Amino acid sequence: MPEYRAPLDEMNFVVDQLHDLSALAHAIDNEDASVELLDAVLSESDKLANQVWSPLNATGDQQGVKLTDDGVKSADGFAEAYRQYAEGGWNSLYFDPQYGGQGLPFTLSMPVSEMAQAANMALGLCPMLTAGAIEAIHAHGSDELKGIYLEKMISGAWTGTMNLTEPHAGTDLAVLKTTATPVDDHYLIKGQKIFITWGDHDMTDNIVHLVLARMPDAPAGVKGISLFLVPKYLVNADGTLGARNDAYAINVEHKMGIHASPTCVMSYGDNGGAVGYLIGQPNQGLVAMFTMMNNERLVVGLQGVALSDRAYQHALEYARERVQCVAPGQRERSAIIHHPDVRRMLMTMRSLTEASRAVCYLTATQIDLSQMASDMEQRALARQRVGLLTPIAKGWCTEIAQEVTSHGVQIHGGMGFIEETGAAQHQRDARILPIYEGTTGIQALDLVGRKTLSDNGAAMARLIADMRADIVRHGDQVSSPQLAMLSDGVDGLEQAYEKLLAESGDDPMLPGAISYDMLMLAGYVCGGWQMLRSAALVSSVDNSTFVANKKATVAYYLEHMLPRFKANLESLLAGSASVMAISADML
Amino acid sequence: MPEYRAPLDEMNFVVDQLHDLSALAHAIDNEDASVELLDAVLSESDKLANQVWSPLNATGDQQGVKLTDDGVKSADGFAEAYRQYAEGGWNSLYFDPQYGGQGLPFTLSMPVSEMAQAANMALGLCPMLTAGAIEAIHAHGSDELKGIYLEKMISGAWTGTMNLTEPHAGTDLAVLKTTATPVDDHYLIKGQKIFITWGDHDMTDNIVHLVLARMPDAPAGVKGISLFLVPKYLVNADGTLGARNDAYAINVEHKMGIHASPTCVMSYGDNGGAVGYLIGQPNQGLVAMFTMMNNERLVVGLQGVALSDRAYQHALEYARERVQCVAPGQRERSAIIHHPDVRRMLMTMRSLTEASRAVCYLTATQIDLSQMASDMEQRALARQRVGLLTPIAKGWCTEIAQEVTSHGVQIHGGMGFIEETGAAQHQRDARILPIYEGTTGIQALDLVGRKTLSDNGAAMARLIADMRADIVRHGDQVSSPQLAMLSDGVDGLEQAYEKLLAESGDDPMLPGAISYDMLMLAGYVCGGWQMLRSAALVSSVDNSTFVANKKATVAYYLEHMLPRFKANLESLLAGSASVMAISADML
Repeated sequence: MPEYRAPLDEMNFVVDQLHDLSALAHAIDNEDASVELLDAVLSESDKLANQVWSPLNATGDQQGVKLTDDGVKSADGFAEAYRQYAEGGWNSLYFDPQYGGQGLPFTLSMPVSEMAQAANMALGLCPMLTAGAIEAIHAHGSDELKGIYLEKMISGAWTGTMNLTEPHAGTDLAVLKTTATPVDDHYLIKGQKIFITWGDHDMTDNIVHLVLARMPDAPAGVKGISLFLVPKYLVNADGTLGARNDAYAINVEHKMGIHASPTCVMSYGDNGGAVGYLIGQPNQGLVAMFTMMNNERLVVGLQGVALSDRAYQHALEYARERVQCVAPGQRERSAIIHHPDVRRMLMTMRSLTEASRAVCYLTATQIDLSQMASDMEQRALARQRVGLLTPIAKGWCTEIAQEVTSHGVQIHGGMGFIEETGAAQHQRDARILPIYEGTTGIQALDLVGRKTLSDNGAAMARLIADMRADIVRHGDQVSSPQLAMLSDGVDGLEQAYEKLLAESGDDPMLPGAISYDMLMLAGYVCGGWQMLRSAALVSSVDNSTFVANKKATVAYYLEHMLPRFKANLESLLAGSASVMAISADML
Repeated sequence: MPEYRAPLDEMNFVVDQLHDLSALAHAIDNEDASVELLDAVLSESDKLANQVWSPLNATGDQQGVKLTDDGVKSADGFAEAYRQYAEGGWNSLYFDPQYGGQGLPFTLSMPVSEMAQAANMALGLCPMLTAGAIEAIHAHGSDELKGIYLEKMISGAWTGTMNLTEPHAGTDLAVLKTTATPVDDHYLIKGQKIFITWGDHDMTDNIVHLVLARMPDAPAGVKGISLFLVPKYLVNADGTLGARNDAYAINVEHKMGIHASPTCVMSYGDNGGAVGYLIGQPNQGLVAMFTMMNNERLVVGLQGVALSDRAYQHALEYARERVQCVAPGQRERSAIIHHPDVRRMLMTMRSLTEASRAVCYLTATQIDLSQMASDMEQRALARQRVGLLTPIAKGWCTEIAQEVTSHGVQIHGGMGFIEETGAAQHQRDARILPIYEGTTGIQALDLVGRKTLSDNGAAMARLIADMRADIVRHGDQVSSPQLAMLSDGVDGLEQAYEKLLAESGDDPMLPGAISYDMLMLAGYVCGGWQMLRSAALVSSVDNSTFVANKKATVAYYLEHMLPRFKANLESLLAGSASVMAISADML
């Protein structure tokens, strides 16, 4: 089975040329963020991903994790691979230097995260969840909590988890039941949480759980939820570890994929109560949680890019080696890569992966600008753009990963269905992506609701204007039919959101009924927009093969992938009537 | 986990009304094929599927099969479930009464097969492969072989297998290496075959392997392949079982799905040679094999329908029970079935399942006409239609099953990724469908090559004419925009095949590059055609809920699913250039 190799030229192009790293560095006044640093980061990170993390991907899948009396045992080699990641400084790239972080833009962490997730997504989930916990503590925790926990978490010495879901409360956090009772300087947490990724493991000395719970007499619903920090081991004043806290993994789930990532049922307070510390204000837990969730959602989209790329590399290698039948234009039995239908699948995988990568990295750049641009107006505009792009990056890129990883299996033919080949694992692992951190349906509702209806389409209108400006600016980089397809797509997106704004008042079912089509339409069009920009900006790259391949991939995307927007647009324009025509009882 | 219930009203409608059972019975002069018989068959078959086969679906997946020194052990309960199936006469429905079959039309076996595959696809594969072997022996075997084997196979006392693939020869049968050396009245078979479904098991006394192999001095390539019957146990003159033949399962594969179906590596002749008997003429093995493969391909399409329906039922039940958030139009927290985006997924599953069922059953009806119509011209036309519809039924319906079973997981949210829920099994099981019995790529090449280019579009032109006649005949049954969408789809199909005919001569890459889009376009349009006919023909059904639901489902399909043809059409019209633009070496 081939090991993953990071697409360094492509990553370099997307960060440096397509999304203009030097302009970003200038805007946020951080001249460390140079292309030289980018090159060094990329090549070093690739080594760890390729040599250490990737070889454990299949073995981790086969072995899985085990719940023992001593807690969860991770798969063989994972603890060491994690240690090397932490010691290499890869966990700390974009965090606050005050707590040992390297203070780099979030954008520079994107290729590093992509490599980690592509090399071994089950393991990559551990630092990904830790990053979310770090962000929440950094943004909302007291100085005391920050002082105790952040440095250890940023260095990777301790990991973090996010505890939202309860058996009866998935999307619907309003009905959480876990309680937090004040005692002295802390709270006692009691309740059960499910789907807790890396909720327990043996890779680090301590684990820092962030837990949503209700205080006594808290208001009902989402306005009564607070966020608590619950360490696996209490921390003494001198920083050493103290008593074991009353927080235990009591089960690990048997899942379709990411077998080596322990998905735990966590029980808090079975023996009296788990010691927890309030993060932020009482009853403001959701605000604190959503601070980190936007970045997490983008990184889940990035996991889609990562698995798509790994599946592409895997299928490409097989297509080069597997000889079957005589392809058109060949004289002898040929590798299946010469068969046009296999080439179609490879180009589909390649072009969707590149388009979704461009969209995710763009979102990261906008996150940096939204948080660090010197110009406050630029910050505000970037914040608006991040809001709009995040559900697209999460929703669309993870749906794309379903298709791409499935093509990866298909190219392997019968061997794709045999687990030893490894292609099936990519598809099984990818299946969680449109579900966790908010399903595609939730992303789609976010896009049509909070991100479009709530601002009366202002963010969408500005996005469309930017796309049209680029169509004018770069239109000569692609053929006229390709440009016309993109232009039609942008018009379609406009038509779609105008329908949404015009008709949602009279048809309360409309936003939900058309939200998925709107999300996918927006995704395909955003992908096309970034592909057009890629065709233009690649010209400055000094690598003729890379340039030619990029232009060909852009052409393929605009001709063969982008037309899918028409299906979404037609479906969306048909509205909610036939979606809701059969009543729930009669289905 | 809910057990599968067969959609009896729907199956009855499709067989009796949509595809006009009485007209079929009349045309083939078999008045036994009545709606009364259909009703009896449906309700009895449903009991077995629901009560016996379905409860073993999840346990079989968890337990899998085991290779022991005594051969392959099937999962608990499978042998008894198979015995009840055979004893109930379900294996013999459409086979020759001379050998104990019931002589019913193949069409009547479709709902029975669908139920079996939906209830337990891993087990259903065993009689499905047996049926293929029966057909090949019946069509090409000597009277002696038929006398010895057919009755036992038709009763289900013995099962059958199909042995095509070797490690280096999947699609590419030309390079098979297994040999057959003549000795006395038989041949000695030596070689290894892979991917042999139910290649060994403990459910019956004997197994009849059909094996492709080369005789000495046979011509190279596909013209030197012969078909042999190789029993697990030799059969004495009096019909009793004799010596163990030199044919053994030496491995069972570890697969993504259908865990309870043993996928065997079969070794023939490790101890001198397996006794085999020639079926049909020397070097005509592929002809004999393809006799049965067309029906098998249709039944694989039907497996797609079956898993789609099971996934729909499973998701529907969960959507009724799972309460999350307040849906629009509701006052309190509501079952997720009330959320429009969930309803969208359910309607997508439902409408695609119904459309793909209509296409599969139509193909079966045409198979009956092609083999048994009294009118020879009707037979010839049906044969042409079967040729065209088979790759569509196999290719499109199995691709549809990927989407539908994935929606089934998605509706379950996080629970969908947990194996105990059972939704993931449907998706994992379905993943083999677009691969075995000829991948989607092979179906697509068959459609554009042998079924369109070879007859200069005659079959396609007749199909399109029939669709247009139905658009005129039934146009008042749907709204004008719905009808226009279907009409545009039919025009698109015409445009597509005309491009294929006009340009393939100058562009040898074109057929392969556009074949998948052509297949999917044809599938969506055929589905739309059958949905329009459904809206018209359902009016005669005496069940107002069924009528209303069918009409609403047709509307949903035409508005929300059919528009996808536009994406396929645009992609196809863009041709092969960007598909092939990056050379194989540069990818």
